[in-house]
Amino acid sequence: MNTDPFAAHESNVRRYGRSFPTVFTKAIGATIWDESGKSYVDFLVGSGALNYGHNNPLIIDPAVEYLAGKNILLSLDMYTAAKRDFLELFVESILKPRGLSYKIQFPGPTGTNANEAALALARKYTGRSSVMAFTNAFHGMSLGSLAVSGSASTRELGGVARHDVIRVPYDSYPNQTFDSAGYIESVLGDPGSGVEKPAAIILETIQAEGGMNTASAAWLSEIQRICREHGVVLIVDDIQAGAGRTGDFFSFEFAKIEPDIVCLSKSLSGSGNPFSVVLIRPEIDVWKPGEHSGTFRGNNLAFVTSGAMCKLWSDGQFTAGVERTTARLQGHLDRLVEKFPKYIEQKRGRGLMAGLKCRSQAIVARVHDVAFENGLLIEASGPNRDVIKVLPPITITDDELDHAIEILDHAVQEQTNDD
Amino acid sequence: MNTDPFAAHESNVRRYGRSFPTVFTKAIGATIWDESGKSYVDFLVGSGALNYGHNNPLIIDPAVEYLAGKNILLSLDMYTAAKRDFLELFVESILKPRGLSYKIQFPGPTGTNANEAALALARKYTGRSSVMAFTNAFHGMSLGSLAVSGSASTRELGGVARHDVIRVPYDSYPNQTFDSAGYIESVLGDPGSGVEKPAAIILETIQAEGGMNTASAAWLSEIQRICREHGVVLIVDDIQAGAGRTGDFFSFEFAKIEPDIVCLSKSLSGSGNPFSVVLIRPEIDVWKPGEHSGTFRGNNLAFVTSGAMCKLWSDGQFTAGVERTTARLQGHLDRLVEKFPKYIEQKRGRGLMAGLKCRSQAIVARVHDVAFENGLLIEASGPNRDVIKVLPPITITDDELDHAIEILDHAVQEQTNDD
Amino acid sequence: MNTDPFAAHESNVRRYGRSFPTVFTKAIGATIWDESGKSYVDFLVGSGALNYGHNNPLIIDPAVEYLAGKNILLSLDMYTAAKRDFLELFVESILKPRGLSYKIQFPGPTGTNANEAALALARKYTGRSSVMAFTNAFHGMSLGSLAVSGSASTRELGGVARHDVIRVPYDSYPNQTFDSAGYIESVLGDPGSGVEKPAAIILETIQAEGGMNTASAAWLSEIQRICREHGVVLIVDDIQAGAGRTGDFFSFEFAKIEPDIVCLSKSLSGSGNPFSVVLIRPEIDVWKPGEHSGTFRGNNLAFVTSGAMCKLWSDGQFTAGVERTTARLQGHLDRLVEKFPKYIEQKRGRGLMAGLKCRSQAIVARVHDVAFENGLLIEASGPNRDVIKVLPPITITDDELDHAIEILDHAVQEQTNDD
Amino acid sequence: MNTDPFAAHESNVRRYGRSFPTVFTKAIGATIWDESGKSYVDFLVGSGALNYGHNNPLIIDPAVEYLAGKNILLSLDMYTAAKRDFLELFVESILKPRGLSYKIQFPGPTGTNANEAALALARKYTGRSSVMAFTNAFHGMSLGSLAVSGSASTRELGGVARHDVIRVPYDSYPNQTFDSAGYIESVLGDPGSGVEKPAAIILETIQAEGGMNTASAAWLSEIQRICREHGVVLIVDDIQAGAGRTGDFFSFEFAKIEPDIVCLSKSLSGSGNPFSVVLIRPEIDVWKPGEHSGTFRGNNLAFVTSGAMCKLWSDGQFTAGVERTTARLQGHLDRLVEKFPKYIEQKRGRGLMAGLKCRSQAIVARVHDVAFENGLLIEASGPNRDVIKVLPPITITDDELDHAIEILDHAVQEQTNDD
Repeated sequence: MNTDPFAAHESNVRRYGRSFPTVFTKAIGATIWDESGKSYVDFLVGSGALNYGHNNPLIIDPAVEYLAGKNILLSLDMYTAAKRDFLELFVESILKPRGLSYKIQFPGPTGTNANEAALALARKYTGRSSVMAFTNAFHGMSLGSLAVSGSASTRELGGVARHDVIRVPYDSYPNQTFDSAGYIESVLGDPGSGVEKPAAIILETIQAEGGMNTASAAWLSEIQRICREHGVVLIVDDIQAGAGRTGDFFSFEFAKIEPDIVCLSKSLSGSGNPFSVVLIRPEIDVWKPGEHSGTFRGNNLAFVTSGAMCKLWSDGQFTAGVERTTARLQGHLDRLVEKFPKYIEQKRGRGLMAGLKCRSQAIVARVHDVAFENGLLIEASGPNRDVIKVLPPITITDDELDHAIEILDHAVQEQTNDD
Repeated sequence: MNTDPFAAHESNVRRYGRSFPTVFTKAIGATIWDESGKSYVDFLVGSGALNYGHNNPLIIDPAVEYLAGKNILLSLDMYTAAKRDFLELFVESILKPRGLSYKIQFPGPTGTNANEAALALARKYTGRSSVMAFTNAFHGMSLGSLAVSGSASTRELGGVARHDVIRVPYDSYPNQTFDSAGYIESVLGDPGSGVEKPAAIILETIQAEGGMNTASAAWLSEIQRICREHGVVLIVDDIQAGAGRTGDFFSFEFAKIEPDIVCLSKSLSGSGNPFSVVLIRPEIDVWKPGEHSGTFRGNNLAFVTSGAMCKLWSDGQFTAGVERTTARLQGHLDRLVEKFPKYIEQKRGRGLMAGLKCRSQAIVARVHDVAFENGLLIEASGPNRDVIKVLPPITITDDELDHAIEILDHAVQEQTNDD
Repeated sequence: MNTDPFAAHESNVRRYGRSFPTVFTKAIGATIWDESGKSYVDFLVGSGALNYGHNNPLIIDPAVEYLAGKNILLSLDMYTAAKRDFLELFVESILKPRGLSYKIQFPGPTGTNANEAALALARKYTGRSSVMAFTNAFHGMSLGSLAVSGSASTRELGGVARHDVIRVPYDSYPNQTFDSAGYIESVLGDPGSGVEKPAAIILETIQAEGGMNTASAAWLSEIQRICREHGVVLIVDDIQAGAGRTGDFFSFEFAKIEPDIVCLSKSLSGSGNPFSVVLIRPEIDVWKPGEHSGTFRGNNLAFVTSGAMCKLWSDGQFTAGVERTTARLQGHLDRLVEKFPKYIEQKRGRGLMAGLKCRSQAIVARVHDVAFENGLLIEASGPNRDVIKVLPPITITDDELDHAIEILDHAVQEQTNDD
Repeated sequence: MNTDPFAAHESNVRRYGRSFPTVFTKAIGATIWDESGKSYVDFLVGSGALNYGHNNPLIIDPAVEYLAGKNILLSLDMYTAAKRDFLELFVESILKPRGLSYKIQFPGPTGTNANEAALALARKYTGRSSVMAFTNAFHGMSLGSLAVSGSASTRELGGVARHDVIRVPYDSYPNQTFDSAGYIESVLGDPGSGVEKPAAIILETIQAEGGMNTASAAWLSEIQRICREHGVVLIVDDIQAGAGRTGDFFSFEFAKIEPDIVCLSKSLSGSGNPFSVVLIRPEIDVWKPGEHSGTFRGNNLAFVTSGAMCKLWSDGQFTAGVERTTARLQGHLDRLVEKFPKYIEQKRGRGLMAGLKCRSQAIVARVHDVAFENGLLIEASGPNRDVIKVLPPITITDDELDHAIEILDHAVQEQTNDD
């Protein structure tokens, strides 16, 4: 397989091509093939952007029809029939059944575009400039999102200081005994604390890049209560954890909270097509017309595929299948943790957004390589790259899942042999 | 036509739907249709994102085939066959014929993602944090790009101060007698000037949102010389002016400069699909692997359509057609300026990236409304919204162009009657 | 007494003149007199700037002689005989006996000038820009010092955002169960914490304006250990707590730490004359000649009085007297706490830098007014202004002290009667 | 003479001691003596802090009396008799005769304290955060003042980015053809300029540290007009140029402007004692009581000496003498410029705040050394250190002046011989 053109022409910044040194072509469901015809189960799914599998026919078939039909593709934020259909499907299939009532903004097609818009709106709404963000958070690579991200390597990237960010400890950081929500409440209530009232608190319910750290329902409720009490906008960055990833559509459903603003992207289009929305409680939707604008906000092909994705959540068979798969995956992971205490420290994450915290970065690197060789794609996360992300499509078949776990089991086993 | 769902569910931020109160469906070439079957010539072309027209069959047909063929769609920055093809086509059809040698980064699919990556790289490369940007510049809506944009309404948007930006006057700002490049050279050379050496100078060769202001070849050369002398990275934001908009592929070709970094997006995919690249002189490509990463960097459908777009530039008939259309448009605009001195102050822009500076915002608003009624879509730009942007597809037919200009002529005429 | 000129000509910002509405003239030791001849015991002592009493003859007599003798008064940072004498006295009487070895910088005559110089030096030395500062800290009113201060009213003052400051909880904040030093160590050691390594940690050993909060010896030691481990400069702002205030010359002597940088001002001149120094561990003294300069750095009258003050600390009788006074004051305060549990919550502070935390701001306001009427000057501190600062001259006589405490006792008593 | 203690104990930052390697003791009028009895004429006068000469008996005698009399020295901002006298003298002798009506704030005793207070007040008054400042400005060494200063070496000092500062060209910068005021007006009036409306414009009428650059009366008037039109606070930093330095009490009297805020320090106390005021147009005095506070704001010894200084300006003989000295100095300098065209490029400054722009830094360094040897103290200024500051006491006798100029003439002559 010829990978020379990548080395010759692509920036040094390329990453995944180095860890998976092959050239991919076809992809269906949980499986992708390289040029040589070798197949791999995909546990990255586009870093959470392909929750419904590759080329899910329920999603792609309408797209082919739309694309072939000379229908309008890019429409800025003009009104189109495809957009109207999407709005109605999203409201009927997703928001209404969950008792949610949000205004929908199309902020540009990436997750970081969505977070930037959410932060700008919270600042505008409150007239304050600071934002509270958490240890080990990750919110994207544009400057506003970088600023609220936690990773040291990331924060150096912008090349400028990270202003207007108040860093506070995430649930259970640095250890279980510390009352993070209590601390936040103290500093917000004390005029001498040196911590100004922020425009917003932005959080992920599961910190994927941060190491698959999970927030408890109790902590999330408490944060929401503090936000309400202090007039602080609660933004849930549900870019990786939402759109079905945890097994529910929104990752925060289990905690019974209702954030002021929710950011969705990644799997939202159902097809991997760049697409995102910002969901806004109506009273916070103080945007003036055209105040936040951009080019790629009318991606009609994404409206079509995303609408098709929304419909899945009205299908009882689909949701039952996701539930079953969740249980199956969790069972597998529990067994692995029990079987390899020497290598695996603990299970992380929640539902189908899972992780295995290993005892070292070297273990994860070895597992990654052996798994790749045997046909499974995984990636590492966490500040010390010692957590294996386990993100199968939520539509993965039992056979694919069992096969992938077998490869994973073997890859950890290999570790043992090396020992 | 039912526009209720937009009012009911979409954020108040929506803009174009308000100025064009209809629902669009089909689109071919320079023409789009609404649900009632009425047709419009499109002089916005997705704010410059559809330079090759809507649903150009040379671009869309390969996309339909790719999409229908279960080929991999989203691939992060893994290696895929579609990406390899794109790299080779871009190098062979675009870079090589122009004697350019750049490394290509895929920075996330939007223009602002590209500018943010370019600014971050310039800061990393130089170890400096400030960036020099121009009066009336526009570079996007995420925080790093907002910071370097000029518009007062835009700059308030981020809700935070605009740090690390040195604002300097653009070519001929505020008037022809002021030597902008000379001033920049003075402050960079004087240790007491209070202006620190910036990491980069970022500029548009034509400031589209800023009012279709154009930089001269002499000024661009001089800015490049100053950058080289002071070790400052020259970034050309060619997001709106590039990818063919001016008639050349890059907007800076006429000035014979070779920027250190070039940002492309908008029309780059040829189809309206979100896609962007950052072109980097090899010695500046100091990214570490994975240092700047994100989800939507492997949009394979965009690789396919963009590759098809690149091929057009190897076709002499295509480029000759663009040249002819350029001349035809310029002739039309000269006639309008001559015919309506009371309403139109001057022609702006360059090549197919044109504008008409009118004598008031009210004139432009009136022209916009009458043109819409008669089947032509235009939009305003400039700090005072008194410039009509004239951005037809560069593939527009003579008939479509003549028809559109007729509508425009009539719309200005209407102004007269109202008077 | 005529106070009209103050209302007519002085800015609205004036404060103490409002709370003590009389006109003062003479002052000796712990006592000051107003124009009508009424005397007051002074428990503010210039907010800690007159630890050695008003017009202490051991300090003032040499000043009169110097001033009358046509000796040079202002000398920038030229060499003068008076400055040489001061340097030798400070080293011999203060530094050497405590085993300390510091370089001495004259950074401008105020406390905030000293803190600004210290912060600038730490940033220069480490090449980092952030500084870690504590809840309820107060470091001065110029922008760099404001940034690290905690109070909400203060932080709004600069009118600009507080950049490059990492706010962390002070010892025992918000409550005893929270391990502040442990938290700081965690975030500094975790690459994903989102907290960058700071240039410095700046702290007061007793937060006077913050409410007379005290740091324990154990916590101070631990912070010093963390600083050393992470290459962070430890700055002790000893402007109010140093120069004898706690009973020792430096407030940190009890904790057996040796900060990298110490800032002194307020009582340093012994006479109330504006004067400050920054003490710098020699290896950190990386200033280039003239890099930090200013006008009032050669205040020779202050050199003379400060030298006289230094000599006091070589006098065993003086230090024994201070020790006795400390015990006497602490005894008095313990009795008050015990006697008025309904009004006084607890004793605060350490040594002669004491406070009484009352149960409300109203109580303190009432005590202030009654005490003033009866001839005692006190002031409130703390974010909620509910702490009475008790800062007698450390040279106060037993009679003056007993008399003042009697007035204080009576003023709290009055509270009861009002009840 | 023993200079060892300075090397042993003082920070490396010391500067003047290095360029004048002797130890000073006595000082009267324009003359100071070192320990060996050698005399020097002082053309630095404490960098403009001793405009009335060293130990001026009209100023010092009352101070000796006050100090010896057990009068209150430090009083925070309480009311004292000495402060009341000062307020009345300043109003009667300085403000009223010039038709000025300002509220007086005591912001801490240094110039930078004054500028910080002025900037904070302007930000509070306007609710804006940015400040417009000029090329080659110098406003002090604390962070807020550093931010508005121009020098590259200075701006690196804070170790943090200079936020919220808009740098604009000073009168005649970079050359005579550029219309600085016109440019400022353009950017303030254009919503697309990228330059936000600032809280204040801060300026020196003569940029002393910047190289003795002078603003014309016309330019100052124009800047005031622009400020008024755009609701921008005009701050004149008159710290070095005011308090008599130019020959008038305020440096801006010649331009017939009335700034919104004026900052005075340096020579304000008349004695070299640290002292400063901020003069505020009454409608801008929106400080809340105690909002800006500090320790050394009640320096009663300075009240006494400053009051004595004020009285001088009511004395016709004094002002006539200053006028005569101004003419004499200017005549001397014109002769030097004419005599040494090879070494001296031009006369700079205005009145008794003069400078000689030399043709190189080396020339100035040589003149400095030869002059010192022969009994004259001068210093260099300007971004390239090629300007000799000529700042005699404004009370210098004709003999002292003529003698000093003779030494200067000789020192430039020496240059020739070396050539």
